[in-house]
Amino acid sequence: MNNFEFYCPTRVFFGRDQQKHVGEIIKGYGFKKVLLHYGGGSIKKIGLYDEVVKSLNDAEIDFVELGGAQPNPILGLVKKGIEICRKENVELVLAVGGGSAIDSGKAIALGAVNDCDPWLFFAKKKEPERALPVGTILTLSATGSETSTSTVITNEELKLKRGFNSELNRPLFSILNPELTFTVSPYQTACGIVDIMMHTAERYLTLKGEAEVTDRIAEAVLKSTIQAGRAALKNPEDYEARATLMWAGSLSHNGLTGLGRDYFMVSHQIEHEISGMFEEVAHGAGLAVVFPAWMKYAYKYNIPRFCQYAVRVWNCEMDYANPENTAIAGIEATESFFKEIGMPTTLGELNITEDSIEEMAEKCTNYGERILPGYIEYGKKEIIDILRLCL
Amino acid sequence: MNNFEFYCPTRVFFGRDQQKHVGEIIKGYGFKKVLLHYGGGSIKKIGLYDEVVKSLNDAEIDFVELGGAQPNPILGLVKKGIEICRKENVELVLAVGGGSAIDSGKAIALGAVNDCDPWLFFAKKKEPERALPVGTILTLSATGSETSTSTVITNEELKLKRGFNSELNRPLFSILNPELTFTVSPYQTACGIVDIMMHTAERYLTLKGEAEVTDRIAEAVLKSTIQAGRAALKNPEDYEARATLMWAGSLSHNGLTGLGRDYFMVSHQIEHEISGMFEEVAHGAGLAVVFPAWMKYAYKYNIPRFCQYAVRVWNCEMDYANPENTAIAGIEATESFFKEIGMPTTLGELNITEDSIEEMAEKCTNYGERILPGYIEYGKKEIIDILRLCL
Repeated sequence: MNNFEFYCPTRVFFGRDQQKHVGEIIKGYGFKKVLLHYGGGSIKKIGLYDEVVKSLNDAEIDFVELGGAQPNPILGLVKKGIEICRKENVELVLAVGGGSAIDSGKAIALGAVNDCDPWLFFAKKKEPERALPVGTILTLSATGSETSTSTVITNEELKLKRGFNSELNRPLFSILNPELTFTVSPYQTACGIVDIMMHTAERYLTLKGEAEVTDRIAEAVLKSTIQAGRAALKNPEDYEARATLMWAGSLSHNGLTGLGRDYFMVSHQIEHEISGMFEEVAHGAGLAVVFPAWMKYAYKYNIPRFCQYAVRVWNCEMDYANPENTAIAGIEATESFFKEIGMPTTLGELNITEDSIEEMAEKCTNYGERILPGYIEYGKKEIIDILRLCL
Repeated sequence: MNNFEFYCPTRVFFGRDQQKHVGEIIKGYGFKKVLLHYGGGSIKKIGLYDEVVKSLNDAEIDFVELGGAQPNPILGLVKKGIEICRKENVELVLAVGGGSAIDSGKAIALGAVNDCDPWLFFAKKKEPERALPVGTILTLSATGSETSTSTVITNEELKLKRGFNSELNRPLFSILNPELTFTVSPYQTACGIVDIMMHTAERYLTLKGEAEVTDRIAEAVLKSTIQAGRAALKNPEDYEARATLMWAGSLSHNGLTGLGRDYFMVSHQIEHEISGMFEEVAHGAGLAVVFPAWMKYAYKYNIPRFCQYAVRVWNCEMDYANPENTAIAGIEATESFFKEIGMPTTLGELNITEDSIEEMAEKCTNYGERILPGYIEYGKKEIIDILRLCL
């Protein structure tokens, strides 16, 4: 195991009806002024908005609202939120929704108390000194943002999608009620399943490091997600299935499944260019296209590890005489599962043609400024090769 | 999954040389006065004491010392520590050692800032309102106290060993360097292996609740511990093996491996009576005697779960026509492993005779005041029956 530091202080309230206590929870911390931040109308349709407002009112928490966070949340709305927070002396950002609302809320929480263009954090030009606290109520199991250090924002003018990781981004508390995901569509559920799996699979399959208990926990998260994913798609109101997806989703990206290893989420970085340029592409769908291609490109550099993945996660039989077959079997099982749950596995299915590949590769390397680390280094040429495998 | 609340804010510094930074870490929090609490001479023998003192001095942290925490730490020393903390205005208790020093340190941290006999917390007569912060440097992978809510103290006058669980007990930070466990004896290593496994096995096998991802994480922790345990006993300086034991040990008792289920650690409660009355019995050794007996007593009430345990943790073949055989195979595999690593599995090996059984059962039920919950209720009679199976 490589040395690591781990600090995940988000207080998790998991289960039925937990959202009804959000007002008391906030009051318990002593906060009096809140920004209620959310996406579109779905939280109103499922009655969650009313429950939250009632709970805040009952606890005498004063709040202002900002809706409109979209999938692949944009900088423009973040800046609006920052203005509101400053004008209204907001003390806590309460993000209600999926990863979009939460990431948007986290970015607002950063920008509200730092005197600079918040995009500088995402462009890695500046580090924030502080952030407002963030609370979340999750309505979609996918990004793990409810317990992660991560926030991902799209600069809509530059058509660039970038993530910023910091301990400042860990929410103070998160309310996780699986019932709030019962009405998530099959497509969105499937996108979420892919994103959850990828957070762990990218920690598991990239770079280097030997970490027995981390490996087995990663396998546990992957296997649970596959099984619960199938069950939730079969019956959207299967509480146990939705609960497993929700908790696996949080654990998959809070750091636990990578501790003691070095990793780099290259598929995520490539995907950011796809949904950065093509805003309508859901992050999970983009990942379902990129990841199998990356695996086909990279497995030769670490056949033993891809065999471990195939056998332990997908129950493939180990071909001891020809391990490469087993590595390939694991890739096929993954791609097959993505198709089974309705995800695209080619750029064509996303209506993206070969013409866009070079530009995506350029952006991914920041126009030659950065190389992505891996078993080999990924520069523009390597990323183009991977994207070609996605065609 | 049952509803749960999870909050584990201990900051973990894992890996080689991390103990050299303890002074900076404490300084970073702003503390200036520390109680350095430890056990016997072992931390001096391995050079850790000198490293810690140097680091504290370099960071200009003022400190007072209290050594002498013993395995099954006693109330008398806790009270000494409380006096010192109050007299010296200690701001943080730095516990350096195994679970004994850490539990003793946690109890001191509770008592120092609450105006009552600290035993009242352990006797469940009073709740503490606050606690001093605790930092730890771990030298023995066993109790999980470095990230847990738990502290277990023996009232040496009453010969009663009781635990007290509270969020107040979670350490502020813990330094986990596997190298510090290289010189742990095979016997102590084995006691630790049993304790680590039991924290998860008792969460896994008792009471009720369906929690897929929790189950698989529990299995991951158990399998890793078995594999790393064997490796560490074979080569005490196998860094990866010691690292796996250390991290599995923390995860096994920080709550993660039971989330979403109801459980009750009945074997732990029974074992407390053994090492409460017979101070020389190591906690892990006592557990190795009690747990197989409890399993033999209880498996009939939940054969499916004991089958899941046998197959997933021990790789037993599932006997679909006669599942009871599989449940029994898992118990045998457990007992066999305990023997393999040099643990006792009978009271006789601990020089305890049938004569002591009734008194231990009386104490375990607080002289009839409490029933231990399980598939059935455990009163004095049931506990006697289990202890008889330990003969």
